[in-house]
Amino acid sequence: MMYCMSVSHKKASVNIRERFAFSEEEKVEFVERLMKKEAVTGVVVLCTCNRSEIYVSGTKQAIGELQREAADFKGIRLEELLKYLNIYSGESAIGHLFKVACGFDSMVLGEDEILGQVKSAYEISKDQGAVDYEMNVLFQRAFACAKRIKTDTNLSRTPLSIATLVANEVFRFEKEGGEKNVMVIGMTGKMGNTITKNILSKPGIHVTGTVRSHKSDLTMEVKGDRVKVVDYRDRYQYMDEMDIVISATSGPHYTVTCEELSEQVTPGKRRLFMDVAVPVDMDPKIEEVEGLTLYNIDYFETLSKNNTEIKLKELDRANVIMKEDLDGAIKEVVFHPYIRRMEELKKTFAGKRLDTLLFEIRDHVSSEELKVVLKTLDGLESWIKEG
Amino acid sequence: MMYCMSVSHKKASVNIRERFAFSEEEKVEFVERLMKKEAVTGVVVLCTCNRSEIYVSGTKQAIGELQREAADFKGIRLEELLKYLNIYSGESAIGHLFKVACGFDSMVLGEDEILGQVKSAYEISKDQGAVDYEMNVLFQRAFACAKRIKTDTNLSRTPLSIATLVANEVFRFEKEGGEKNVMVIGMTGKMGNTITKNILSKPGIHVTGTVRSHKSDLTMEVKGDRVKVVDYRDRYQYMDEMDIVISATSGPHYTVTCEELSEQVTPGKRRLFMDVAVPVDMDPKIEEVEGLTLYNIDYFETLSKNNTEIKLKELDRANVIMKEDLDGAIKEVVFHPYIRRMEELKKTFAGKRLDTLLFEIRDHVSSEELKVVLKTLDGLESWIKEG
Repeated sequence: MMYCMSVSHKKASVNIRERFAFSEEEKVEFVERLMKKEAVTGVVVLCTCNRSEIYVSGTKQAIGELQREAADFKGIRLEELLKYLNIYSGESAIGHLFKVACGFDSMVLGEDEILGQVKSAYEISKDQGAVDYEMNVLFQRAFACAKRIKTDTNLSRTPLSIATLVANEVFRFEKEGGEKNVMVIGMTGKMGNTITKNILSKPGIHVTGTVRSHKSDLTMEVKGDRVKVVDYRDRYQYMDEMDIVISATSGPHYTVTCEELSEQVTPGKRRLFMDVAVPVDMDPKIEEVEGLTLYNIDYFETLSKNNTEIKLKELDRANVIMKEDLDGAIKEVVFHPYIRRMEELKKTFAGKRLDTLLFEIRDHVSSEELKVVLKTLDGLESWIKEG
Repeated sequence: MMYCMSVSHKKASVNIRERFAFSEEEKVEFVERLMKKEAVTGVVVLCTCNRSEIYVSGTKQAIGELQREAADFKGIRLEELLKYLNIYSGESAIGHLFKVACGFDSMVLGEDEILGQVKSAYEISKDQGAVDYEMNVLFQRAFACAKRIKTDTNLSRTPLSIATLVANEVFRFEKEGGEKNVMVIGMTGKMGNTITKNILSKPGIHVTGTVRSHKSDLTMEVKGDRVKVVDYRDRYQYMDEMDIVISATSGPHYTVTCEELSEQVTPGKRRLFMDVAVPVDMDPKIEEVEGLTLYNIDYFETLSKNNTEIKLKELDRANVIMKEDLDGAIKEVVFHPYIRRMEELKKTFAGKRLDTLLFEIRDHVSSEELKVVLKTLDGLESWIKEG
């Protein structure tokens, strides 16, 4: 039987979660320690910024051993630890693992970063020989399920955040040969910062970010050679080279006016200007500049709203997939002991008459169970014929 | 499949129920008429003061046929009829039959008069050949269940009403040889009237009832030679002959005072005086009369309260019995078709390997179903060994 002990954002504040975080070394050490217990036949320690979860498999005593050892390992009193725990057992633990692996338990529903984290947690234990048959089946099936949801639905490909939508436009912008030059006006603001990070997650893009020279407390880390920081006042000087210009300041004035832009840039070149500020940063008239396309905040908000609807539908589809795969995993775990017992079972039933067996069943099971057995019998008739 | 169409106190007022009542002749006629329908293989018409219910068994069309014919037979528009109906199908119809037969659907929970009514309704149909295999099984099992509840629990033997409790004291009063003489002071009042009826339900009891001579509108029917009516003012004249005196008037004065009683009755004779009036009718001092026992309303209210607790416990026990028997009935109905198909099933499964069958099952059923099948397989192993 598998169990899961979870300290997550559902019950524990960030302070508690930090206190209960495991480094890679600690994972290895804790797994080793727990595997010494007789009751335990498998341990996986998963630790992300939102949760610390320990999956353990073994006898009924396994979950008790886990709690005591975890409290001891982290120097927390067991009584206190219990306050922050969610405990899952058997099928509910399997269901929880599937939810976590598929991103259904994440803050951003359906995000797929978690899958990599679960996989790596699993690998650490696997390398230590701390994954038993049941755990192996369940984790592998959970990974397969997450992959199927990723492939067969658009759940993880349907962003809702403006920053992601803007970055997607950058990636989609077609430019033959050479790298894309992107200016981010207001790069040190919250939105500008997130957009910049998103853009730089793919190669072939250079960012020129503007900063206000009078801001002496500039703390943004500018990493790598793909980002250049320029003074806000000099922005027009660089604009002609740009394929894309994004503006995300909180100021009341236009950061790009039609007059100045027309003076500075070569007409005819294909350019994408994106204004995600409220109130608007870019003069709507700049659309008159030849080759220039302008998207404003309304455009992205409509996209986000449409994506919300899509995401809800994809979520339904993903749920169907998850239930199906979860059911298959439970079946495998439930069925497994019978494979080993097959010869013994064959002997028991050898030469027994079907009617004798059916009457025994009728006299011993409940009506609900009898209905399932008879339905299965009917099914078998046709499955055999098909097979 | 069995269906039930019910017009009961749950949805229909007494007027509607009366309009939908069936006399014995009508029952016979209606059963005959409905049995002519191809879809119908069984009909039972049950009619009590609280409900008219028609049980029908046959194909899916049977319930539709029943509704149309019932509306036609009673000259009620189908749309109007539908307003007052409860329809039960399959297992819910079986469950309803059991509830009704066991008195769980009655105004007085657990009363057993209904059982006789259901039995006689069934007999009428049985005599007409209008009870098919399924109905026969279900009604017989419902009767057996009701009988088991009556025998194994104290549900129907635990009265809550003061009138029944008073009557029970009369029945329990021991008198060697001869009949019991009971005086009911205030016999024409509601309580006095009910008590008198209850008392007369058993033989060997004579009632002397007092009435006020100034009440010219006396309408109580005095039936049989076991009841004598006397003037209230003459009550003390008769009291010496009495074994039991019950007083249930609504007046403010004592109906029995100690002084007058002491003058009129022979001391030493065993007597039971029961005062169920509020305010009290009998002078508490009469207990001083030799041989006399006095019970007042507090005594009966305590009895009733204790019985309520007993009844609730008995109800739980009765429910357990009903669920058990209901489950057995459903199993028999579900299983029956397979008995006829046994030879065909044997052929289908002849020479099939157990592991082949189990893998087919695992691949086709849900995890919930698989668990039931495997649990049944485990059960069979031990049932065979026991058998």
